Amino acid sequence: MTPSIFIAMPGNEAAAGTLAKAYGATIGQLELRAFPDGESYLRFDTDLTRRTLAIVCSLDRPNDKILPLLFAAATARELGAAKVGLVAPYLAYMRQDRRFKPGEAVTSREVAQLLSNAFDWLVTVDPHLHRYGSLSEIYSIPTRVVHAASLMADWIKTNVANALIIGPDSESEQWVSTVAKDAGAPYTVLEKVRRGDREVEISIRNLGDVGERTPVLVDDIISTGRTMLETVRLLKARGDAAPVCVAVHGLFAADAYEMLIKAGARVVTCNTVRHTSNAIDVHGTLAKALGTLSVSTD
Amino acid sequence: MTPSIFIAMPGNEAAAGTLAKAYGATIGQLELRAFPDGESYLRFDTDLTRRTLAIVCSLDRPNDKILPLLFAAATARELGAAKVGLVAPYLAYMRQDRRFKPGEAVTSREVAQLLSNAFDWLVTVDPHLHRYGSLSEIYSIPTRVVHAASLMADWIKTNVANALIIGPDSESEQWVSTVAKDAGAPYTVLEKVRRGDREVEISIRNLGDVGERTPVLVDDIISTGRTMLETVRLLKARGDAAPVCVAVHGLFAADAYEMLIKAGARVVTCNTVRHTSNAIDVHGTLAKALGTLSVSTD
Repeated sequence: MTPSIFIAMPGNEAAAGTLAKAYGATIGQLELRAFPDGESYLRFDTDLTRRTLAIVCSLDRPNDKILPLLFAAATARELGAAKVGLVAPYLAYMRQDRRFKPGEAVTSREVAQLLSNAFDWLVTVDPHLHRYGSLSEIYSIPTRVVHAASLMADWIKTNVANALIIGPDSESEQWVSTVAKDAGAPYTVLEKVRRGDREVEISIRNLGDVGERTPVLVDDIISTGRTMLETVRLLKARGDAAPVCVAVHGLFAADAYEMLIKAGARVVTCNTVRHTSNAIDVHGTLAKALGTLSVSTD
Repeated sequence: MTPSIFIAMPGNEAAAGTLAKAYGATIGQLELRAFPDGESYLRFDTDLTRRTLAIVCSLDRPNDKILPLLFAAATARELGAAKVGLVAPYLAYMRQDRRFKPGEAVTSREVAQLLSNAFDWLVTVDPHLHRYGSLSEIYSIPTRVVHAASLMADWIKTNVANALIIGPDSESEQWVSTVAKDAGAPYTVLEKVRRGDREVEISIRNLGDVGERTPVLVDDIISTGRTMLETVRLLKARGDAAPVCVAVHGLFAADAYEMLIKAGARVVTCNTVRHTSNAIDVHGTLAKALGTLSVSTD
């Protein structure tokens, strides 16, 4: 499956550029702007007739992005594109994966249906698969998932001497152990102590003596960053070395990034969501994943 | 077709209340909020099993509203609703009704398809039908259109002595003449003189002598309000009476409303889009239109 045209939704130019280069494909032009009344205007300035197209759009802060993305996919088909795929380095709406309270929207499923209707295939990086075993439980189109664990491990091995990898909870243990093994470092996971309905307290009792090691907190997503922030503070209070926070997707709601920096952490993310903390490049691995999709080509 | 539950998306409580009262129906509760990462959370706090549901959502500034609206419709079905209809007092994305330049998205069609997939029927007020003869050209579900012309005419008759109705262009003449006839007032339409590709100049030469009459500028939508603003200024410059601007849908992009008021106009709209200028109530007429939809009931 080799797209011959890549289209970058705003902010995704770097990823689209790397992908296009890997496939000797061209970058198509999409004009996207807002009318004064808030409606979106879109125009493809590239002939799409009988071409296989990949639209690149990371879906952090997704509500503003999904509607224009659906417009782009539908318009590409109308303009004669043979296949329209989606490369979403960050895939949104994966956390509401079950009806926790009666009447709740299971938005992971609704988004999967909208995207499955609009696109022929999907490639993404480490989607938040918690209660779903795989994307195929909710996506009806072929999907490929890129795993960032070994890239994160490489970064840690190169940049952190004497690391101790620390995962956020027991559910993350399998993933954390993979990162640690690849990085050649020991690991542990935090204990979350539930205090009532909403409050969760982190315990670092089971951390034991970090000693001369540098604590490296790893997680798939940093959103509010509360768990990481609390852990950073507890470690600092104990007099441990300044921790490094490493995540796949840095969403950084509100002032999450600034708070972590202020608490004394070094913060590093993969470039799935564009951010000043991006230090681990996943675009090359994304390009390889595209090649493994068995979708008919143009 | 009588819905037994009405759900108001945020800001549509008044319309939903009037509609529910007209049908002896209940107002269902929908909790809608944003997670810190910008994703939407929705929860119905009302049993929807085997009920016919109408979701009320005016679609001005539509990009933020359409995704949660689609989530609400899909979730209502999952929760067992028999039918899910949409009451959209203002229907967005009707102006991009053709591919004016190669490669453009015909967003009216894409939105129609998304809403037709999500809902069983649609009721709206004066959609901007320019190149489409009717909504059925793009909507595959039953639709009902409420016309505000006679309500606008009533308002003019009651509130403006000696009115001269003025339409924006020759294309609006049929609609303007209806309003004028119902209001028992004479009418005319402006001439638009095209200067190059983008600039349009209004001519009021064909207005003749307004005399003792009060100019009443009517239009279906006020968005940037440029045409109305220019006309108000030209009339004021001639020394005519302060004009009244009457529209169905007051979108008022940026400072459009303030500019019209500053130029000396009185501005009045129907309550399809909630705004301080709302003076013409269309909710009762909306309720009647619902009753004419032949969709099976619960």
